[in-house]
Amino acid sequence: MKKNYQVLLKDLTLEEKAGLCSGGTFWDLRGVDRLGIPEIALTDGPHGLRKQRRDQSDHLGFMDSEPAICFPPAVGLASSWDRELVYQVGEALGEECLSHDVSVLLGPGINIKRSPLCGRNFEYFSEDPYLTAQMGAEQVKGTQSKGVGTSLKHFAVNNQETRRMTIDAKVSERALREIYLAAFEHIVKEAQPTTIMTSYNKVNGEYVNESKHLLQEVLRDEWGFEGVLVSDWLAVDNCINGIKAGHDVEMPTTGNYSPNKIVQAVKSGELLESELDKVVLRILALIDKTEITEKHGMYDQEAHHEFARQVAAETMVLLKNDDNILPLSQTDKVLLIGDLAQKPRYQGSGSSHIIPTKIENLHEELTKLMPEGSLTFTRGYEAELDVALSNHYLEEACELARQADKVILHLGLPARYEAEGLDRSHLNLPENQLELLSAVSSFNSNVIVVLSNGSAIDLSWDDQVKSILEAYLGGQASGGAIADILVGKVNPSAKLAESFPERLQDVSCYRDFPGVRDETVYTDDIFVGYRHYDKVGLPARYSFGHGLSYTNFTYSGLTISSKKMAADEQIEVTVTVTNTGQVRGKEIVQLYVLPLDATVPRPIKELKGFDKVALEPNESKDVTFVVNQETLKYFDSVANDWYVASGQYQLAVGKSAEQLLLKTNVTVENATPLKATVTRNTPVRDVAADPKKYAIARELFETWYSLIVREKTSDNDKVDTELGIATYNNMPLRGLINFSQGQLIDDEKLDELITKLNAVQ
Amino acid sequence: MKKNYQVLLKDLTLEEKAGLCSGGTFWDLRGVDRLGIPEIALTDGPHGLRKQRRDQSDHLGFMDSEPAICFPPAVGLASSWDRELVYQVGEALGEECLSHDVSVLLGPGINIKRSPLCGRNFEYFSEDPYLTAQMGAEQVKGTQSKGVGTSLKHFAVNNQETRRMTIDAKVSERALREIYLAAFEHIVKEAQPTTIMTSYNKVNGEYVNESKHLLQEVLRDEWGFEGVLVSDWLAVDNCINGIKAGHDVEMPTTGNYSPNKIVQAVKSGELLESELDKVVLRILALIDKTEITEKHGMYDQEAHHEFARQVAAETMVLLKNDDNILPLSQTDKVLLIGDLAQKPRYQGSGSSHIIPTKIENLHEELTKLMPEGSLTFTRGYEAELDVALSNHYLEEACELARQADKVILHLGLPARYEAEGLDRSHLNLPENQLELLSAVSSFNSNVIVVLSNGSAIDLSWDDQVKSILEAYLGGQASGGAIADILVGKVNPSAKLAESFPERLQDVSCYRDFPGVRDETVYTDDIFVGYRHYDKVGLPARYSFGHGLSYTNFTYSGLTISSKKMAADEQIEVTVTVTNTGQVRGKEIVQLYVLPLDATVPRPIKELKGFDKVALEPNESKDVTFVVNQETLKYFDSVANDWYVASGQYQLAVGKSAEQLLLKTNVTVENATPLKATVTRNTPVRDVAADPKKYAIARELFETWYSLIVREKTSDNDKVDTELGIATYNNMPLRGLINFSQGQLIDDEKLDELITKLNAVQ
Repeated sequence: MKKNYQVLLKDLTLEEKAGLCSGGTFWDLRGVDRLGIPEIALTDGPHGLRKQRRDQSDHLGFMDSEPAICFPPAVGLASSWDRELVYQVGEALGEECLSHDVSVLLGPGINIKRSPLCGRNFEYFSEDPYLTAQMGAEQVKGTQSKGVGTSLKHFAVNNQETRRMTIDAKVSERALREIYLAAFEHIVKEAQPTTIMTSYNKVNGEYVNESKHLLQEVLRDEWGFEGVLVSDWLAVDNCINGIKAGHDVEMPTTGNYSPNKIVQAVKSGELLESELDKVVLRILALIDKTEITEKHGMYDQEAHHEFARQVAAETMVLLKNDDNILPLSQTDKVLLIGDLAQKPRYQGSGSSHIIPTKIENLHEELTKLMPEGSLTFTRGYEAELDVALSNHYLEEACELARQADKVILHLGLPARYEAEGLDRSHLNLPENQLELLSAVSSFNSNVIVVLSNGSAIDLSWDDQVKSILEAYLGGQASGGAIADILVGKVNPSAKLAESFPERLQDVSCYRDFPGVRDETVYTDDIFVGYRHYDKVGLPARYSFGHGLSYTNFTYSGLTISSKKMAADEQIEVTVTVTNTGQVRGKEIVQLYVLPLDATVPRPIKELKGFDKVALEPNESKDVTFVVNQETLKYFDSVANDWYVASGQYQLAVGKSAEQLLLKTNVTVENATPLKATVTRNTPVRDVAADPKKYAIARELFETWYSLIVREKTSDNDKVDTELGIATYNNMPLRGLINFSQGQLIDDEKLDELITKLNAVQ
Repeated sequence: MKKNYQVLLKDLTLEEKAGLCSGGTFWDLRGVDRLGIPEIALTDGPHGLRKQRRDQSDHLGFMDSEPAICFPPAVGLASSWDRELVYQVGEALGEECLSHDVSVLLGPGINIKRSPLCGRNFEYFSEDPYLTAQMGAEQVKGTQSKGVGTSLKHFAVNNQETRRMTIDAKVSERALREIYLAAFEHIVKEAQPTTIMTSYNKVNGEYVNESKHLLQEVLRDEWGFEGVLVSDWLAVDNCINGIKAGHDVEMPTTGNYSPNKIVQAVKSGELLESELDKVVLRILALIDKTEITEKHGMYDQEAHHEFARQVAAETMVLLKNDDNILPLSQTDKVLLIGDLAQKPRYQGSGSSHIIPTKIENLHEELTKLMPEGSLTFTRGYEAELDVALSNHYLEEACELARQADKVILHLGLPARYEAEGLDRSHLNLPENQLELLSAVSSFNSNVIVVLSNGSAIDLSWDDQVKSILEAYLGGQASGGAIADILVGKVNPSAKLAESFPERLQDVSCYRDFPGVRDETVYTDDIFVGYRHYDKVGLPARYSFGHGLSYTNFTYSGLTISSKKMAADEQIEVTVTVTNTGQVRGKEIVQLYVLPLDATVPRPIKELKGFDKVALEPNESKDVTFVVNQETLKYFDSVANDWYVASGQYQLAVGKSAEQLLLKTNVTVENATPLKATVTRNTPVRDVAADPKKYAIARELFETWYSLIVREKTSDNDKVDTELGIATYNNMPLRGLINFSQGQLIDDEKLDELITKLNAVQ
């Protein structure tokens, strides 16, 4: 823009200000021509550019857009656990935006995978907020390093597609803070995303885009978010309420409909112009920051494609590899089965759907990498059908399988199973594929399954096969990346960013997902993903953090800088990781924290650190993790605040959530008691637990104790004594008034006592 | 009383009225001498009389009271599944009250067993509201048939002892209605209990005794409760708020403290005297109804004791009986092991603790019933110790076990494990007993375990023994009743009224029971007990409804009076049950209803009928169940009302929740749609689902559909079409305003449309 936006504000008419608060088109913010305020373009991401052709009037059709590189969706990026790689993907996306004059790329999506059924899980990173936060921050920083804006989405608690535009997610403040908002908080503080996209749904009765608690109190005041809040497309019910709650831009355009409402609201006094001005200043700042002022040439599409292939290979998880059946050897006679090997499924459906610059398929790419004549292919099934299996395909596959040394069976979910707007109702592969799997594995005992899917599926058939490569949706170079791994050109190094449950019924929210009509209650609270499986002692089939390599890593020499720490101090934990195998590889080393003395319900363990290290054979490296209050804190639902509880914590380092190899303990001391206000209804035990408070109430309490508890010696009477003590401890302070008929204390004196007790806090 | 209480009201001074609203002593309501209004006595129950000796100043000591018959606590009564028997127990309790001039017996306790850890479960009937309701109603009716009052307790949601006086139970209205209030509702409507005792805890932020919603709206206005609400002892924080919410009597006495407050509140205008009068009238009516005006002699203690023995035998559940090892034969050389066989544990601790008229123990009673010299006894362990096992006991037990044909090992929980005021922290038997069990079972393969405990315990050792008799806490004649069953004098016929889980972690509320300080969130919602195990597919070790007999029963000839019914009709299901074994026995036939087409989360099945039939060998009887709206309804959380959903329901008849032997389906049609108000934010799908409403909106919807959905043919484009349809269906009505930029419809026209749509409801 030509002018400083602070100055521009004064030049804008009320109508122009109101106009800035919603889109000018389906994809552009409105500009103000006469003042040189440009329109800027917002475009779908998050793992590629979906810039709708401006000659298309079809503003919802997801399939017509400018060709762009389709990188692996977030499910894959997260599985890399590679901060630098994700940063680089962010950079590449930024470059592509510049080439297409796009100011803001709508991503990354960082919603938590609460249920594997969520149709949009492929666009999200993880079931774990820490991993999500780390990955999301890097993508934002990478893209923004190019001067291109991002839009962290979908804020917040948008964890299902069913009725997503009207569903009201009822969720505790604690689950919000520890699970659903935690990644947003980290990324806002760490990377300050240019914009945040508010989600369609309600949270605890309010549309998010009208929630003063979430937008103003939490996001802006508490976390310091400085950017612009943009609504998801058609999410706004009442734009005036939105502005008053701290919301900024309604998308897409409503023509003059919403601007007129804003003008009227200011004129009627319902909305203060000063409230509107705050919004306008934020929008002008965004335009100023992300306006593309120079013409950028086309990015190097070939180089980006090659990069996409490298990235994809980093995102594929080797779940199982019995007898080291992978990588393939040069002498193997290999049968490749699967429609997906020729018609790859490499991305999900919906607003993130990219028109790729080109597509690699597994059949072609594997053929290139294997000795001539060593690879045979048969289709096996039709990828988009999910019931009937053709006898012709089946017979051919079985006959060929009988003759092969190894069979690569490429399976996966049909496109419509994983789409924005639609949740799945089960975790199964299509029936035709399962039938084929069962038949083929009865003819050949060396079956390797390669999977293309965007979220956890049922793998209860895994004992029928020797190896499973979870290739996820690998983007446009998916086929090549799979081939690279199968032949050992790339050593797989990804690990699961989500648990694969034994059964759908084991999922934390199984009992009530996706809710009753427009209400969904988060009864699983903080126990999501591995936090749930841990707590109720149900093993996952493949656990969070799990992934194999073609080499082996050993862990040794765990050291801790101190066995004691104050709540506001930090310590370090270091472990040595060694590649004891024959080939170069990368290991993702994970730190989990286990509160051992928790007095409130807490997860058994939580991921609080990880590092991905590349090691040559016989090479060792030290990995160091910091443990501080961020690592230890929980959100106390009664105090309504974060708190670090005193006590023992186990620090466990390992290869996955289920393979914790080395452990040490630290004792944490917090001299500051938990915020707690004493009231008439505070039980004796809570006052007695605080030495300073107990000193004040001691005399009274002792009298009270003697009235309630008779200490006795016979067996039965001992129980009586125990009951008396329990009664005494459970008694609220006001109980003594009535108990003593007002003789020992009355309401007035109790109020005085409470004032004293609260004064020593 | 000498005067009609309606007239008396006019004679009372304000001070006297206020005085009636709380106790005159720890155990008596206040009277008004000058007007001939008597004090009446309230006394702890529920399964016996705990009338504190009036010469005891110790008003909390639970151990000093007049001797009375200790019947089996509710856990046992419920396991009988015998309506008539429980009615008779109620009658007997009433007779004992009359003998002791007690007007109101404080019971029965009908709280739901949410967690087996709850220390007071022994006093409650079941995890299932239907069974609880049936049992509770009979006990109330039985006692009240004698002119003695009852106090249904603890209203409501008092499902844990931890912090029971201050805990706030956060629970959904649906879970309240379907699980926690359901038995209260049934019993109020069926038996009109004289009083209801309000519980200590808060529900959703309010002390129950101050909850207008629970007391006035639900209990009085909706269910028609006409009796008096009495607080649990020391439960009242603010008696003025209580009276305004519909509460009546504060217990125990507070001297003049609370009466003075009430007087002041009336004088200051905070409380209307007319509000106070309502309370006083209810209290006077209670006194009038339950005043004991004639002197009753002592009931026949010996006859009551004999009855208690019969009752006890009906309450003991034969969980396992491999090789029909029970009943004992006359030729068996039997070893009886266990401290509990001489020092029986036959009741729980706390306010329900009875001083029995006499106590039977298993050792003596079994000796009487067995051939001389056939029974040997050794102590084995000390019942009140729970860690160290004496080597002396152990060696003797093993040596004797080696020589016996069969070993009866009497195990159980120490008294302090199950007590009012204290929850358990685990489900295990004491370590000394487990050690003994393990040792003895390695020396003798014919081990029969007899258990004395008041709530589910861990039975993961059950494969070490041939038989388990769950004797629960059988009351003072427990020892004789166990003996009767062991020798086959009585054929066991009880079945579990609660699930025995495989593991504590499998329990519905395991993740967060008993809450965070003074807040406990009922995250398991309606999925409690078998409703939870069913839903998440975790088998119970011994399922709800399970129990064996010494004979066999077959089920045949299931008939249904109609395969279709309207929601307000009723049908009948009949099954023939035959005793195909050699001895007389009783079978508890159970009806479960399974909603097959549920569109909201519902339990897989729910108990909706049962009958206990006595059958001679080869005898058959028909059992008929009624299916009506009570059987089918659920509480809709969005409509905030009960509703019978159209669709298929399976009606399954069987021996337990896990043994459903015969099944049939009924199609239910409800012509009345669920109450639902259309708003701007109602999604299209909800309007389109109602034919009448759709007719009104059809033209508009069709235009809208055509704007969003492009029907396409290629594979990818088909997905695009599906997404379009999903988007259309999920869109709230107001979406069209902005989507069409106000052209197709604007706020005003939408309001008009909504008015029309709501008019056709």
